Amino acid sequence: MMDDTPSIPATHSSEPSRGLLDRFIRPRSIALVGATERSIWSVAAHDNLVRFGFAGRIIPVNPKGGTIHGLPAATSCAAAGESIDAALLMVPATALLDTIEDLRSAGVAGAVLLSSGFAEMGSAGAVQQAQLAQAARKVGIRLLGPNCLGFVNYIDSTPMWTTPLRRPTPGPTFALVSQSGALAAHLEQSAHQQSIGLTHIISTGNEADVDVADAIDYLAANSPARAIALFLETVRHPARFAKAVAYADSVGKPVIVLKVGSSEAAAQAAQAHTGSLVGNDRVFDALCRQLGMTRVRSLEELVITADLFARLGPVARPGLGLIAMSGGLGEIATDQAECEGTRIPPLASSTTSALRETLPAFATPNNPLDLTGAAMLEPDLITRAMEVTSRDPEVGLIAYVFDPPVKKDKLGFAERFMRAIGAGAKASAKPSLMLSATFSPVSSETRALAEDNGIIYSGGGLRHVLRAIGQLCRWSARRGRSNVPLAIVSRVNSQPGTEREVLNHLAAFGLDVIPGAVVGSADEAVAAARKIGGPVVLKIASPNILHKTEVGGVALKIVGDDAVRAAHDALRGRVAAARPDARIEGVIVSPMRTGGVELFVGTMRDSQFGAAIAVGLGGVFVEVLKDTSLRLLPVTEQDALEMLDELRGRAILDGFRGAPAVNRQAAAKAIVAIGNAALALAPNLVSLEVNPLLAWDDQIEALDGVTVWDGEREQA
Amino acid sequence: MMDDTPSIPATHSSEPSRGLLDRFIRPRSIALVGATERSIWSVAAHDNLVRFGFAGRIIPVNPKGGTIHGLPAATSCAAAGESIDAALLMVPATALLDTIEDLRSAGVAGAVLLSSGFAEMGSAGAVQQAQLAQAARKVGIRLLGPNCLGFVNYIDSTPMWTTPLRRPTPGPTFALVSQSGALAAHLEQSAHQQSIGLTHIISTGNEADVDVADAIDYLAANSPARAIALFLETVRHPARFAKAVAYADSVGKPVIVLKVGSSEAAAQAAQAHTGSLVGNDRVFDALCRQLGMTRVRSLEELVITADLFARLGPVARPGLGLIAMSGGLGEIATDQAECEGTRIPPLASSTTSALRETLPAFATPNNPLDLTGAAMLEPDLITRAMEVTSRDPEVGLIAYVFDPPVKKDKLGFAERFMRAIGAGAKASAKPSLMLSATFSPVSSETRALAEDNGIIYSGGGLRHVLRAIGQLCRWSARRGRSNVPLAIVSRVNSQPGTEREVLNHLAAFGLDVIPGAVVGSADEAVAAARKIGGPVVLKIASPNILHKTEVGGVALKIVGDDAVRAAHDALRGRVAAARPDARIEGVIVSPMRTGGVELFVGTMRDSQFGAAIAVGLGGVFVEVLKDTSLRLLPVTEQDALEMLDELRGRAILDGFRGAPAVNRQAAAKAIVAIGNAALALAPNLVSLEVNPLLAWDDQIEALDGVTVWDGEREQA
Repeated sequence: MMDDTPSIPATHSSEPSRGLLDRFIRPRSIALVGATERSIWSVAAHDNLVRFGFAGRIIPVNPKGGTIHGLPAATSCAAAGESIDAALLMVPATALLDTIEDLRSAGVAGAVLLSSGFAEMGSAGAVQQAQLAQAARKVGIRLLGPNCLGFVNYIDSTPMWTTPLRRPTPGPTFALVSQSGALAAHLEQSAHQQSIGLTHIISTGNEADVDVADAIDYLAANSPARAIALFLETVRHPARFAKAVAYADSVGKPVIVLKVGSSEAAAQAAQAHTGSLVGNDRVFDALCRQLGMTRVRSLEELVITADLFARLGPVARPGLGLIAMSGGLGEIATDQAECEGTRIPPLASSTTSALRETLPAFATPNNPLDLTGAAMLEPDLITRAMEVTSRDPEVGLIAYVFDPPVKKDKLGFAERFMRAIGAGAKASAKPSLMLSATFSPVSSETRALAEDNGIIYSGGGLRHVLRAIGQLCRWSARRGRSNVPLAIVSRVNSQPGTEREVLNHLAAFGLDVIPGAVVGSADEAVAAARKIGGPVVLKIASPNILHKTEVGGVALKIVGDDAVRAAHDALRGRVAAARPDARIEGVIVSPMRTGGVELFVGTMRDSQFGAAIAVGLGGVFVEVLKDTSLRLLPVTEQDALEMLDELRGRAILDGFRGAPAVNRQAAAKAIVAIGNAALALAPNLVSLEVNPLLAWDDQIEALDGVTVWDGEREQA
Repeated sequence: MMDDTPSIPATHSSEPSRGLLDRFIRPRSIALVGATERSIWSVAAHDNLVRFGFAGRIIPVNPKGGTIHGLPAATSCAAAGESIDAALLMVPATALLDTIEDLRSAGVAGAVLLSSGFAEMGSAGAVQQAQLAQAARKVGIRLLGPNCLGFVNYIDSTPMWTTPLRRPTPGPTFALVSQSGALAAHLEQSAHQQSIGLTHIISTGNEADVDVADAIDYLAANSPARAIALFLETVRHPARFAKAVAYADSVGKPVIVLKVGSSEAAAQAAQAHTGSLVGNDRVFDALCRQLGMTRVRSLEELVITADLFARLGPVARPGLGLIAMSGGLGEIATDQAECEGTRIPPLASSTTSALRETLPAFATPNNPLDLTGAAMLEPDLITRAMEVTSRDPEVGLIAYVFDPPVKKDKLGFAERFMRAIGAGAKASAKPSLMLSATFSPVSSETRALAEDNGIIYSGGGLRHVLRAIGQLCRWSARRGRSNVPLAIVSRVNSQPGTEREVLNHLAAFGLDVIPGAVVGSADEAVAAARKIGGPVVLKIASPNILHKTEVGGVALKIVGDDAVRAAHDALRGRVAAARPDARIEGVIVSPMRTGGVELFVGTMRDSQFGAAIAVGLGGVFVEVLKDTSLRLLPVTEQDALEMLDELRGRAILDGFRGAPAVNRQAAAKAIVAIGNAALALAPNLVSLEVNPLLAWDDQIEALDGVTVWDGEREQA
């Protein structure tokens, strides 16, 4: 069944749709619809265009005409008498439908809709928003918003943004997409404090039309951004979102995401804020892992990480060679690198001897490397240490810790060090960067000095940068393994319900399942048990009974004809007493298994993202520790192997209390099969649970299988 | 046994010793010994004193005399002809012993020793360092260093520091103690970027004499610091350290610590760097919990957290009321607060109705509270929202998110908002603060504007500040519970070795232990089993056999005379075959226990910090997950309750698979008893292990006990 695992290839949007967006984001003419000098939004939007040096035409539109922002105003877009590419709408909600018609007649490709008071306010607003989106779609106009601040295209000096913007920072590295306009402004400020430039900001607001998937797809195809930073409150169209992220990744533009909703309370707050459903956070985490999307946990981290991904690009090997002028910094770095999963490998003996020749006697050739105060007097040590360390076979990138002064007048002091670091970067056999010890502002002069010396510099400080390096290494290692999940494939019309039906369905997908004969009498039970030849298990077979143990419907370790006969009759009696209503199909006779490792594999259906699969270890691991790993379906064997490796109790798989180690490859195949078996039953399947999936060496066997279907309630 | 639990009261150093340090740290006259204009250290030290406006006498000392740094130089301290309080030693290592004698004759109280090349370089350097310390101690001179940068006393404008310092920041909040001089400089820079002032910096280097414990004790007694920030590589004198921290805490000066060594690799790096042993990091974590010391993980966090502790002081109640002008910020804050253990409680209905009266219609009265863009137009909303939210019964402190511009010329824009926030702070019924959304520099003008408006402001950004608030709330909640561990109390002369001896020793400390009769024959075994009356367990009793199961020395669930007799003889036979060398004292007959929750309690001896106790759940929890919590001994019942609560598998204690919930108070008493029993056996006890400690409701019973003693090797 593996060959036709359902999956969506990572293609991109249709060209025509992206072309329309491109005319909107790179307009030659912009209408400020509802322009007036009394509106701070209108004034800010116009000021931004002028200050950025927008090269196209700006057309204020106001029914009263006259002169606005020093320009002749048209009474409508149509009345402007020329083709208009983009419009910024600052008109009352009631006038919007008429405005759309006016935009159409001027050939507008896209419009920014600032107004709040739509879907985020409840169902009436949502209806209004949907009408507006439909009207725009009908006439081929893309809408950004409502409830957004617009977009900024720094590359073409085109801000369509309604709060005052800072002047662009040179050398933009990444693009920013944010569902919140206010947070986009905070992120822009944080980037500005680091002298980090952006290629674009797109604030998508309520996403009546253009959503984050569109924005990512557009930026992946049409921008010089080398990474895309995302602030997300919700994912409105998971499958399109996954496609866009996978496409961006495939063209070398990794996506870094800060998504709220990891806490219960945040999910509630988001509901109040945007009227959107915050998805199950663990499912989103699973999606990140599967798409190679890097998830961060704070605003600063989003900026620092996206910038570092953009500046460094993928690294060929994960080991970090770290050099500083202080031993203490090296120790902190070591702690933080370990905590973030970044490896600071010990150096090869060839490297340590080469370093010994280079370093003063009182320095120890280690990784991290402490150059001691000697480098203050002799900066050339830095160059040599970087060069030698970079040649170590285990080192994939080099980082030098240095805090240049922030103030321009103090920068002279730093020049000789940065020349030495730049020379080290050039001499280095691997990618290299310079990082500050603590989170520090980076002045434009410092940034320029770094670039002049060929230095990749991050002011994020040890903690943020080491975390970003760890993320970069993980992302680099899994590149090219894009697997877009979120497929719903239904190929089976039956709804397997009883244990045997479920096990047979699983067997059809290549899973080993425990043999079992359904018998109708004690004599048949005895015959079946003789055939098995060892201790047997008897279980009631009934489509109405989900939890067999609770009605006395299970008998374990039965040996010998008499015992089988007695157990059969007693079991039937207990079940008949407990559940006289249940339809009984007979009793299942199966071999009794002992030993091995019990796994739990279950699929679920997330209301937002669709089918997902959870894997855990049986017993207390699942029941007490909720120790499971999660992925969206379908999963690959590689995914399944990673899932097993994420389990806290994974040591159990390596052999425990005398059991042989579980063959992980075989277990992974079984997990893939269960996932595919569940997908084949979509869309009415709520869950398919195999518990236990018994693993003994390379034998992986389902001992029980349960399905829950739409409209079904669990019954004992 | 509880009444005489050993513990050291939180007293402080002797007054005379602290007085000497005070004369050193607040000198009226300073000798720069080895002063010369050719040394950058000498020049920097002198410049610092002049720029800070040191009010006392500066005496350059150089055998050649003459004029140095524009001052007449003395040829020796003695030759200066006046009493000298403090000396900065910049002389070759070989001349140091002679210098000490010169210092003595001038009445010097303390000296800073810059030189490196001592204990951090190996044993020869360590010997030299010890000789120097001994010489100084003999003549009553305190030594700071070697291998340090000195100290800065900002309060008395007294820098004895050998790299160029920035001018003091007004309004100092906390003191900094660092074993690394370079890191002290980085931390000072980070504080400076936030316009956070320090009261003192003390860099202790190799700690030949003055160590971090002295520094903490001094600052607790004699400085206006309201918190103490520590950078630690090692703790050289754990008991003195614990006393100093507890003393500082008791006088309202919480200690915030960044200690390296959480990674394996860091422990190795530290050894190369300072020649000091980095202790077991988990033991240090345990010490932090017991002392109420707050541990942080990065340099920025140390500065932000210490400053926030100093500015806010303890809070009476942990709930945070968070207000912002953006919903997205509230969502991020909620995620991060939950992740850091800070509570953002839902508001009482009285609060929400009061807010509804205050807020514009489109704002939702929640916590976090999104004032929306409306607060931009009407800053008074901020004041009212802070006031109303602060009255909520669940709210203990209020935080408002606002990013003032960094540049002076843009600050005008922020003034009206900060006036409104300040008014909110004044009207607030609870402590309040303003925090930036992202980590931002704080200019001196912004700091001044905040203070003028009565605003406590942190530029640490949501992530760092929320983490600091969480730490502050936890510290506030446990204040007054100081329990200085690290006692070694030996009151028992015997060395219990066999299972029965160990159990009897535990019973003497109040622990319930399983009854057991040691029998010498099958007949005696039968008699003992009859007395017990149910299923029994037989175990071999031998001082030489630690792991009984492995030699066939255990038989479980034996019922009936014949079975007991057979099991006894078979057991003796197996053991005799497996360990013919072992001295056999007989067979223990005990009742067979089933059900309940198995706990693991074991003590260990850390080479640096002394006796510690680990608690875990039995089975896979300890064996696979290493799920244990740790404390130094002695522990209180409160400590033990917290230990149980830290276990990942703690849900097991609340009743699992039909077992009743474990009475945690009873389990805590048992843990305390085991700890005390172990302490009573110090110092030769390596470990005392009770495994399992069986818990069933409020019956807590030790089923087995094993000791390991110095010089013993574990044997099967």
